[in-house]
Amino acid sequence: MPRYKLTIEFDGTGLVGWQRQDNGPSVQQAIEDACAKFAHQEVRLHTAGRTDAGVHALGMVAHFDMEMDMPVRKLQQAINHHVKPYRVSVLEVEVVDETFHARFECLERSYLYRILCRSARPTLDMGRVWWHQQQLDPQAMHIAAQCLIGNHDFSSFRAIKCQSNSPIRTLDEVSVEQVGAEIHIRVRARSFLHHQVRNIVGTLAMVGKGKWTAQDVKDILEAKDRRRGGETAPACGLYFVEARY
Amino acid sequence: MPRYKLTIEFDGTGLVGWQRQDNGPSVQQAIEDACAKFAHQEVRLHTAGRTDAGVHALGMVAHFDMEMDMPVRKLQQAINHHVKPYRVSVLEVEVVDETFHARFECLERSYLYRILCRSARPTLDMGRVWWHQQQLDPQAMHIAAQCLIGNHDFSSFRAIKCQSNSPIRTLDEVSVEQVGAEIHIRVRARSFLHHQVRNIVGTLAMVGKGKWTAQDVKDILEAKDRRRGGETAPACGLYFVEARY
Repeated sequence: MPRYKLTIEFDGTGLVGWQRQDNGPSVQQAIEDACAKFAHQEVRLHTAGRTDAGVHALGMVAHFDMEMDMPVRKLQQAINHHVKPYRVSVLEVEVVDETFHARFECLERSYLYRILCRSARPTLDMGRVWWHQQQLDPQAMHIAAQCLIGNHDFSSFRAIKCQSNSPIRTLDEVSVEQVGAEIHIRVRARSFLHHQVRNIVGTLAMVGKGKWTAQDVKDILEAKDRRRGGETAPACGLYFVEARY
Repeated sequence: MPRYKLTIEFDGTGLVGWQRQDNGPSVQQAIEDACAKFAHQEVRLHTAGRTDAGVHALGMVAHFDMEMDMPVRKLQQAINHHVKPYRVSVLEVEVVDETFHARFECLERSYLYRILCRSARPTLDMGRVWWHQQQLDPQAMHIAAQCLIGNHDFSSFRAIKCQSNSPIRTLDEVSVEQVGAEIHIRVRARSFLHHQVRNIVGTLAMVGKGKWTAQDVKDILEAKDRRRGGETAPACGLYFVEARY
């Protein structure tokens, strides 16, 4: 039975997130239902990242097994045809061997977080950025972020409802740069805790406003206490960029 | 009576265009109605570009006169507060003298047209680009576009319903470049005919597909016959970028 790897782009606005849920459309349901329409069997998607409601993806990866043998180009067209009611699009389909697993074999996941700093409300980028009416200091944010790189207990940046066994993770990159009127925060790790990126961004935003220092971020990390960290940055600024295998 | 210059960003999706109309919300109506709410008088906007339904703007310019004297920052906040139901946002307000006229004193208008070339339907950029499933050749398009620069009779690129007295315009720039998976076409001129940019883009797309040559574009220009030109590219890929005074 062939295994197919999908690279997926989606606009998370109006979706309940990756995972199939009862309260609205999800990416998983959109693609699984699309497959069922031509595969004449139920398929089950496994993904590199179970993103929250409102989070976007530029290159989410998932895989599924299907009895039917189809040319990858035709499979891509068939899914994209049936997935049309949703803002979900399969960018690429590859045949992979049965040792490939989108979730368990992923070596590194990368995210982008976009903050728009300007007095005027976004129009074209509404729901695509976290809007701040004041300027943030990207240099101060970048410097403060560097203490998060490496192997740490990230309890201060972990959602209360996080179901992971361990709060220990290894961050490979947290970088902050100004791009026009936006601040882009890029984060890379083998895996993440629930809300980890958004909680890091909420904390760095406090540094960008000049309210917290790099030492404060270090203290928050060492406190291992979620109540010490900054707010959870909104989902709409977050993009799953890439999964590496 | 002070004259105020506005720089405006808007998402043209769902708007009937710049000009006030009976069949739906327009940018002009959104801003004029917003001003009426706090100015306690009717204001009348004059604009650098009366864009069509679905066309976006990154930096549209307009002006209006208002009896009330208001600090520019406060005026910006007041308009943006009342314009919230629409995807319209005032980026900047300046006080200008009475010789300034957004339409008649504009020296140069510039537009950007975005074409996305890939097999998969856009999600995040849905309604923001013209989607082509095949690759287009940006070099061939750029070379073919150069014959349009300068003073010409643009009858072949002018909407049948165009109300301008003359089909003669002077194009300062038409450049085509690949940016990631997109092709960006930038066009600059003192003024444009109705649908001129979209008709130029539709013609250049035929060159990009390899169906027409640079000589064909020259022949189309010289024919001065709209029926010879390419299709009118969709509004959603077009952005009014800047007005220079």
